[in-house]
Amino acid sequence: MLADTSAIDAGELRIDGARLLRRLDELAEIGAIEGTQGCSRLALTDEDAAGRALLATWMRDLGLTVIVDAIGNTVGVLGSDSVQGAVLTGSHIDTVATGGRFDGNLGVLAGLEVLETVIDHGVRPGRPLAVGFFTNEEGARFAPDMLGSLVYAGGLQIERALQSVAIDGAVLGDELDRIGWRGAAPVPGIAPHAFVECHIEQGPVLEAEGITIGAVTGVQGISWTKLTLTGQSNHAGTTPMSHRRDAGYVAVRIAGFVRDVVDEIGPPQVGTVGRIELYPNLVNVVAARATLTVDVRNTDDAVLTDVEGRIAEFAAGAAAGEGVELATEVLARFVPVAFDPAVIDLVEHVAEQLGHTTMRLPAGAGHDAQMLARICPAGMVFVPSVDGISHNPAEHTDPADIEAGVNVLLHAMLRLAEVGRVEERAP
Amino acid sequence: MLADTSAIDAGELRIDGARLLRRLDELAEIGAIEGTQGCSRLALTDEDAAGRALLATWMRDLGLTVIVDAIGNTVGVLGSDSVQGAVLTGSHIDTVATGGRFDGNLGVLAGLEVLETVIDHGVRPGRPLAVGFFTNEEGARFAPDMLGSLVYAGGLQIERALQSVAIDGAVLGDELDRIGWRGAAPVPGIAPHAFVECHIEQGPVLEAEGITIGAVTGVQGISWTKLTLTGQSNHAGTTPMSHRRDAGYVAVRIAGFVRDVVDEIGPPQVGTVGRIELYPNLVNVVAARATLTVDVRNTDDAVLTDVEGRIAEFAAGAAAGEGVELATEVLARFVPVAFDPAVIDLVEHVAEQLGHTTMRLPAGAGHDAQMLARICPAGMVFVPSVDGISHNPAEHTDPADIEAGVNVLLHAMLRLAEVGRVEERAP
Repeated sequence: MLADTSAIDAGELRIDGARLLRRLDELAEIGAIEGTQGCSRLALTDEDAAGRALLATWMRDLGLTVIVDAIGNTVGVLGSDSVQGAVLTGSHIDTVATGGRFDGNLGVLAGLEVLETVIDHGVRPGRPLAVGFFTNEEGARFAPDMLGSLVYAGGLQIERALQSVAIDGAVLGDELDRIGWRGAAPVPGIAPHAFVECHIEQGPVLEAEGITIGAVTGVQGISWTKLTLTGQSNHAGTTPMSHRRDAGYVAVRIAGFVRDVVDEIGPPQVGTVGRIELYPNLVNVVAARATLTVDVRNTDDAVLTDVEGRIAEFAAGAAAGEGVELATEVLARFVPVAFDPAVIDLVEHVAEQLGHTTMRLPAGAGHDAQMLARICPAGMVFVPSVDGISHNPAEHTDPADIEAGVNVLLHAMLRLAEVGRVEERAP
Repeated sequence: MLADTSAIDAGELRIDGARLLRRLDELAEIGAIEGTQGCSRLALTDEDAAGRALLATWMRDLGLTVIVDAIGNTVGVLGSDSVQGAVLTGSHIDTVATGGRFDGNLGVLAGLEVLETVIDHGVRPGRPLAVGFFTNEEGARFAPDMLGSLVYAGGLQIERALQSVAIDGAVLGDELDRIGWRGAAPVPGIAPHAFVECHIEQGPVLEAEGITIGAVTGVQGISWTKLTLTGQSNHAGTTPMSHRRDAGYVAVRIAGFVRDVVDEIGPPQVGTVGRIELYPNLVNVVAARATLTVDVRNTDDAVLTDVEGRIAEFAAGAAAGEGVELATEVLARFVPVAFDPAVIDLVEHVAEQLGHTTMRLPAGAGHDAQMLARICPAGMVFVPSVDGISHNPAEHTDPADIEAGVNVLLHAMLRLAEVGRVEERAP
């Protein structure tokens, strides 16, 4: 059924790290943030279109069958004209406005490098191999985040996804047409045999522990809420404190409470108020309106639900105490995801076989793999982030760690492609 | 020396309330905020220029000598070609971006109405009477607030004032030239005999107490500070709380503390954080930078200084605790002003003579009168603000209260104009 994968399993086949780094550099030139190593390539912008074109060219140069679906997700398949039965890898190439060059991009180019390595060495796996990139993973331009992979997995109707309105007012379907990336393949997409994604950790754990490879156990549950407070604008000098209905004051109390409750619960609970806006936002005017977002995450959905409830209760009380009206909008809510135990075992096993240090850890951020986990066995390979920095132009991962991670991806994919069921290959 | 002011003192002379309201309506049409009673007439904009032109026309129609100084302050004098020895009234016609129609405008049009009443009845006071409007009182476009009257009183060099940069990037001197209101009269200006300003209270005290006329005892000290916090942007899902340098978190803690310290001290201390900005201001990114403004005011300068110190100490501690850098910029600092005791007595006495309820109270906001108080005996007449609302299109004062206040201004100015020294007429 296979050519010489037993020899490969012994550890001889390796990716070309320099070639991968060259592709990372070339892709990072599109939307490069001047004077930094970072990238600004928001979903479905002209920069995203240029990145997509480059990826499609590379896929075709390798002889892959390129499939674009109705939401712009793009997959290149080796050894078939369909994802049916394939071992799929991939990630996303959209970035946040002040992003790095590795987040998402590494996972897509890692997959391309795995496929090129397989082709170069004349390896013929028992299953098709495929690499894809999914539309609007970051959620920095359109909501929700992980939109493309969510549509692929059948978790969001294409009609609703196409109507998503960007922070700049554009409609997703219009933007998809404008850049010419509304494809013919139907969604939901075909469930692959398995899905493995290589990604930077975006956190400090692997670096702090001195570990090269993370076998990702799952993804935290994510809750995003937007709170809008409506009080009354008034003069900051002449209005006694007892007469105020200060929307800004209630906003800062809620934001402070988010940290209080997170500290009380302790790790792995995290909570962030990343966005606050006051109106009219003047030094000497009591704010009439305030908006803030609350981002809370936990691997335990029961704890996360409790945290949401406590914040909602505090917000209601703080607003009532100041005579301010409170409106709440859920922007995103994803329950925690547990990856396939056999895929987690496989990543850990391959890492050990290749001589790398490894540990299991949950992902703090959302990833396309968590959406694919709805329709097939899925898992992830993490590599360390220097200083844990991500969503920042200073985001960095050492070349040696990148090479290690993509070699783990290569061998994990080959193992998955060798046999009919993942479980049969678990150690 | 006078015509028949003793008869007038007995209470017979009255302003024409309907004429004053017509002028308030006409001026409010310039920069009107559609669908509201409010005005948007930022200093030295085209709207301000149109308002100035209307005022100058009205002054000339009454036969006043119109004097424009080097910062655009404009005074109309009755019975002289100079402010020398005159009893001056006035205020400002610039507004905040979402302003009402009474703040400032009432004081200028009240003065015009007083002079027209005096002219109509053939009264010949022993001193010139004058009405003026001062440039950029609000501070909503250029800093500092009360800029024109501060220059008039010699508290700010004209060269520095002309270089003030607007929130929209324009330079004050350029804007003054553009709208044609850089006048020939030198600054600092001539000290008048006395200054009395009629103004809406902009707070809820008179209404709550059921009082028509406020005899203003002075103006609170004002302290405006801008705090800039610099931390590190990072991923909201993958960064453990212990690794964060969240500038937004420190900002909300400082803003919350401002209310804590104000509540602990109690009235008349007030404190406001009206402006907060985060960067990059995204739901899932820990804020790298945050700015906030702190506006604290008190009639007692020692208490105000103590409050400033406590906030500064808290801010430094909160920033250090989060590993965030703190930079502080003083935007404005005015010590409390006590008005002339004889002018306060006079306002109270005239209000009683005219049959109005009256009380003494400090002003919560800054006013041009506090700058004129540096160079002559000064005071203010307050009328009630409905629901205490100001700096808001819904700002309102009942016509009967306006008429009462301007009649008090009329008789206070006549008393001041009768005699050589204010003190001689105090009850």
